[in-house]
Amino acid sequence: MSQRPSGRAPADLRPVSIERHFTKHAAGSVLVSFGDTRVICTASVEERVPPWLRGKDSGWLTAEYGMLPGATGSRNGREAARGKQGGRTVEIQRLIGRSLRAVMDLKGLGPRSVTIDCDVIQADGGTRTASITGGYVALVDAMNKLVADGKVKANPLHGQLAAVSVGIYNGEPVLDLDYAEDSQAETDMNVVMNEAGGFIEIQGTAEGHAFSRQELDGLLGHAEKGIGELIEMQRAALADES
Amino acid sequence: MSQRPSGRAPADLRPVSIERHFTKHAAGSVLVSFGDTRVICTASVEERVPPWLRGKDSGWLTAEYGMLPGATGSRNGREAARGKQGGRTVEIQRLIGRSLRAVMDLKGLGPRSVTIDCDVIQADGGTRTASITGGYVALVDAMNKLVADGKVKANPLHGQLAAVSVGIYNGEPVLDLDYAEDSQAETDMNVVMNEAGGFIEIQGTAEGHAFSRQELDGLLGHAEKGIGELIEMQRAALADES
Amino acid sequence: MSQRPSGRAPADLRPVSIERHFTKHAAGSVLVSFGDTRVICTASVEERVPPWLRGKDSGWLTAEYGMLPGATGSRNGREAARGKQGGRTVEIQRLIGRSLRAVMDLKGLGPRSVTIDCDVIQADGGTRTASITGGYVALVDAMNKLVADGKVKANPLHGQLAAVSVGIYNGEPVLDLDYAEDSQAETDMNVVMNEAGGFIEIQGTAEGHAFSRQELDGLLGHAEKGIGELIEMQRAALADES
Amino acid sequence: MSQRPSGRAPADLRPVSIERHFTKHAAGSVLVSFGDTRVICTASVEERVPPWLRGKDSGWLTAEYGMLPGATGSRNGREAARGKQGGRTVEIQRLIGRSLRAVMDLKGLGPRSVTIDCDVIQADGGTRTASITGGYVALVDAMNKLVADGKVKANPLHGQLAAVSVGIYNGEPVLDLDYAEDSQAETDMNVVMNEAGGFIEIQGTAEGHAFSRQELDGLLGHAEKGIGELIEMQRAALADES
Amino acid sequence: MSQRPSGRAPADLRPVSIERHFTKHAAGSVLVSFGDTRVICTASVEERVPPWLRGKDSGWLTAEYGMLPGATGSRNGREAARGKQGGRTVEIQRLIGRSLRAVMDLKGLGPRSVTIDCDVIQADGGTRTASITGGYVALVDAMNKLVADGKVKANPLHGQLAAVSVGIYNGEPVLDLDYAEDSQAETDMNVVMNEAGGFIEIQGTAEGHAFSRQELDGLLGHAEKGIGELIEMQRAALADES
Amino acid sequence: MSQRPSGRAPADLRPVSIERHFTKHAAGSVLVSFGDTRVICTASVEERVPPWLRGKDSGWLTAEYGMLPGATGSRNGREAARGKQGGRTVEIQRLIGRSLRAVMDLKGLGPRSVTIDCDVIQADGGTRTASITGGYVALVDAMNKLVADGKVKANPLHGQLAAVSVGIYNGEPVLDLDYAEDSQAETDMNVVMNEAGGFIEIQGTAEGHAFSRQELDGLLGHAEKGIGELIEMQRAALADES
Repeated sequence: MSQRPSGRAPADLRPVSIERHFTKHAAGSVLVSFGDTRVICTASVEERVPPWLRGKDSGWLTAEYGMLPGATGSRNGREAARGKQGGRTVEIQRLIGRSLRAVMDLKGLGPRSVTIDCDVIQADGGTRTASITGGYVALVDAMNKLVADGKVKANPLHGQLAAVSVGIYNGEPVLDLDYAEDSQAETDMNVVMNEAGGFIEIQGTAEGHAFSRQELDGLLGHAEKGIGELIEMQRAALADES
Repeated sequence: MSQRPSGRAPADLRPVSIERHFTKHAAGSVLVSFGDTRVICTASVEERVPPWLRGKDSGWLTAEYGMLPGATGSRNGREAARGKQGGRTVEIQRLIGRSLRAVMDLKGLGPRSVTIDCDVIQADGGTRTASITGGYVALVDAMNKLVADGKVKANPLHGQLAAVSVGIYNGEPVLDLDYAEDSQAETDMNVVMNEAGGFIEIQGTAEGHAFSRQELDGLLGHAEKGIGELIEMQRAALADES
Repeated sequence: MSQRPSGRAPADLRPVSIERHFTKHAAGSVLVSFGDTRVICTASVEERVPPWLRGKDSGWLTAEYGMLPGATGSRNGREAARGKQGGRTVEIQRLIGRSLRAVMDLKGLGPRSVTIDCDVIQADGGTRTASITGGYVALVDAMNKLVADGKVKANPLHGQLAAVSVGIYNGEPVLDLDYAEDSQAETDMNVVMNEAGGFIEIQGTAEGHAFSRQELDGLLGHAEKGIGELIEMQRAALADES
Repeated sequence: MSQRPSGRAPADLRPVSIERHFTKHAAGSVLVSFGDTRVICTASVEERVPPWLRGKDSGWLTAEYGMLPGATGSRNGREAARGKQGGRTVEIQRLIGRSLRAVMDLKGLGPRSVTIDCDVIQADGGTRTASITGGYVALVDAMNKLVADGKVKANPLHGQLAAVSVGIYNGEPVLDLDYAEDSQAETDMNVVMNEAGGFIEIQGTAEGHAFSRQELDGLLGHAEKGIGELIEMQRAALADES
Repeated sequence: MSQRPSGRAPADLRPVSIERHFTKHAAGSVLVSFGDTRVICTASVEERVPPWLRGKDSGWLTAEYGMLPGATGSRNGREAARGKQGGRTVEIQRLIGRSLRAVMDLKGLGPRSVTIDCDVIQADGGTRTASITGGYVALVDAMNKLVADGKVKANPLHGQLAAVSVGIYNGEPVLDLDYAEDSQAETDMNVVMNEAGGFIEIQGTAEGHAFSRQELDGLLGHAEKGIGELIEMQRAALADES
Repeated sequence: MSQRPSGRAPADLRPVSIERHFTKHAAGSVLVSFGDTRVICTASVEERVPPWLRGKDSGWLTAEYGMLPGATGSRNGREAARGKQGGRTVEIQRLIGRSLRAVMDLKGLGPRSVTIDCDVIQADGGTRTASITGGYVALVDAMNKLVADGKVKANPLHGQLAAVSVGIYNGEPVLDLDYAEDSQAETDMNVVMNEAGGFIEIQGTAEGHAFSRQELDGLLGHAEKGIGELIEMQRAALADES
């Protein structure tokens, strides 16, 4: 049987924490940790829409992703200083935004924009799935505030979701890869599911050899288990007060 | 049962053509058509490697994707004039490159770089899967030329692959969506598989509601059928002469 | 007497073809070939004008030029990836736009913009003159469509034009240089003329030694002959149906 | 007498905290808080120098500054997405780098680069002075690690420094302005001093009316007091263990 | 006593000249020389405001700074060609703009923008202080023209200012450093003061060792003297005619 | 007969002045005036070559062109601030560089680069021809300095050139158009010729209607006369001392 570097069992998540109200200005602000991966997720609401939505009576949700230069083992250059976001960043922030839009009623949001900012302050694998999982909680806080402020009639959120990575490490499917596993994994897959077990997004990549239908089934089984647990943790965090 | 706009049966590909030697300068040059989607795929080999590979005795393969401004229904702005590639472009070219690297022995390529350029001259849905499928054929021609020129001892290609889109249209899984379907699909998935039926890449997105495990199975079944047919067509095109 | 690499006589054009309706979305779409030089020219019409023309009751025509990375002998980097258009590109697209505006009644076009996109898929010298010659035909198709759609009262085109390169190769004036000649030519000149033999644009550059008034006269004579033939070929192509 | 919004006396600092080892990858990592202003400061060491220092047997220290989009009252756009750092950012990061270089022996650092990254996660005035004060502590940890790793013979740090803002609010000099004061201040000044009370940097700006020599003296007195206290707090934080 | 490279006494300015109407198009145009430092300062007025001021019934003043590539000892790259302004440029132009806004009534300016362009044609130290001193004179000419044209009721300028650099060279405070001194100075300070001796801006940097309160006092004394003289020269230049 | 706005006869140049040693740092520095058009041209020599010339034992000459924001009737935005050079700038600087390379022996220059910077401080038509004419003189001074410094064996300049604009104004060919004429001209042509009357570059554009061969001949006659006079003025300026 696989010996994971962390000693976890194949279907174990890392310790997860979700700290709401981490900063005071944004409508939603969450510090999410998946083990040593830590991401600040804020949800900001602005009373305007992108140019292509003007006059269309609908809102928009988008996400932006960044990594602090000191978040990784060797310093990664600041994208603002280089003058452009890298391909990996663009790919990740599109995934986050697309996933969260899947549980939003953009018409019901009205002519306003929500931005989910996910900034990684410490990276240890799984930053995109932590971002989606934490970003959802920040979004809930921001939408509840919109309702409380009387700006929308009904809460535009119509579902819950979380995300986790799965992969094949040492020939075996494992859940929630940390960096030590991720950099060695033969297959790497990110899965986003809603609270009813429906798939929002699947992105799987064979790093070493191609993976089989049977391996895919094993990966999806782990993902389903992990996302179920994450959804419970989101609920617990949200039950606290607000 | 679903009535597809094109009248195709759910598991039908569009007419596919693969025209090799479409232009004369690049080592491999293919015009691939999936119905009305037409993409020029060229494979160029340069005798140098990116800075981070210098002195590492390995080669590299990357892909770039573009769309001619006149390729779509309403003109889409030229990325070179805007001064940056859009997020969709970046996401697609990373997918193409990652997929094709999965069948390449980069060590065996030696200290050289292969660039697969995929330029869409007419878009009607499925441009990224056509790009991968046609890009593979251009890559074969370029690698055969390397062998013929005595630059590598063994052909660095160690597998074959093709790609196709599948999706849920009008509640039913369908194969190889055209634009009329793609813009209405509830789920959209791109699948890359090798000649042995192994998965190289899966990217599925719920556009409307989340999709179930059963729907996923239906989609993957269609993909497997379609990719099998595309792999045959690649072989036929490659058998012609080279 | 000069021995041109292609065996052509000094005043011979290369084989020229003009294929209309090459792609289906743009209002005008032409594949033009001057020998091995092949350019896709599309004409797109948008119902808006640049900021500096707003409220001025006039339209605009502009051109953009690009070269596919695989179009040349050794791969030329993608300008969209580099983040800017090179100086040569800028110079060429300004020439194309300026030339075509010379035969357009921009007031009569009304508050809309025409963009002529010229994308070189295979380069063998003379890409800018092929672009102007083919771009004109795409423009005709687009303007005829505007008339047919009842959007303008009169066709805004008030003239016809074509372009050709001339140069001094091996001491003798020659017409329509291919790459083998262009890279060795002592003088290189691009000429744009209208159907009445009037000059729209002359751009001549001494590459080796300065050229004399007499040499200039020889070059202009060739240009006049070549453009006369190109104007006939444009007419023949346009006579086909539309 | 002035009534500060926070109820502080004119020469009172806000509560300050300096948390070392805030993240695990960078050689130095500090979360510094000046009241509600919170900044992550990391110090990263790389074994290379900028091009203009190559072969000169000296090292370099530079600083980069950023603000998370959700750090302020209304979301401020991500500089990486806009493709350039704003003027305010550039000005601040130059100040941080220049100040910290004043206490470094760059020759003694050897051919390596130190980058101090200051990322504001919550802004409430005084982000640049908090960055310098916290950045210094991160720099100490990074330099101690260099010494411990045997990479330098002597610690390249030859001094200690801290920074604070002072300003004229409601006609009276006050120390360490928060946002409520800063946005109303008539004069705003940032002062960097070393442990011996010498000035490293003074940047004072009249926002409303020009300030007099006497007002300047009052401001500098407050600054001297505040910096003395900050230097003590840095010492206490550094005494903890490392 | 200090021996300055130029032979000047410590509190001596270089020869200063202020030539108005240096070019004919801009509303104000001044060639200012501080010794061998020569800067063209123009003031242009446009009948529009930046987006964030629209509808706010106020005007704006901003400054831009540049250096001709041939202005320095070894050619410095053209910022327009490199595609961005360097950090030093940004810092300087922010200083110039902030200083000049301090003597402007932006409400009284009405909904228009003033741009002060400072372009260094020959650099020998002190370009930013020459820019502020000369830019002020260009601004006076432009504001007088606004009054003369009946566009504003009252002159929006409510004060006069000038700027000078001071520094510690060879251990002694000196006034108006040239490049030979500037590149060796232990402390470098730029001071902007108004005609009443009030401080608008102080920016002092310790280049070598930290400077003391006593040294600061010496520097400010020189600055006060120098600015007093510059203010007289501005008056003399402005008295000439306009 | 034509009445030119300036009262000049059709074949009259504007008053021309060529002031050498205008600034002190660059190897060549010229202020050239064609009437109210004033351009600073500097020639800088650097002991390195562009990457594509390394190891090829040849030098390079390039030109850069800029216009100060205040040089024109209404302020034109600073290209460095906009982050890119406009198309017109690119076109002009390519013309200047290409023209001057035509009289240079780049092999003889050795492995160094010459940059001709042409910065327009006041614009009134003909800035590109003034730039070439003045840039040539700055180039002579820089090449003479190379010879004097013993860095090259023989002067790499093997010819002399000047440039002038001609155009059709009010139906008649005129020489050296000022802005009032240029903005109304039916045809606008820039001509570069060497001291032997050979053509280096011809760029003619029909602004209104196409121009005939006869009109072209008239334009070239004026150009020949004007360039002959400019070449004399260059000689006179250069005879002064150096």
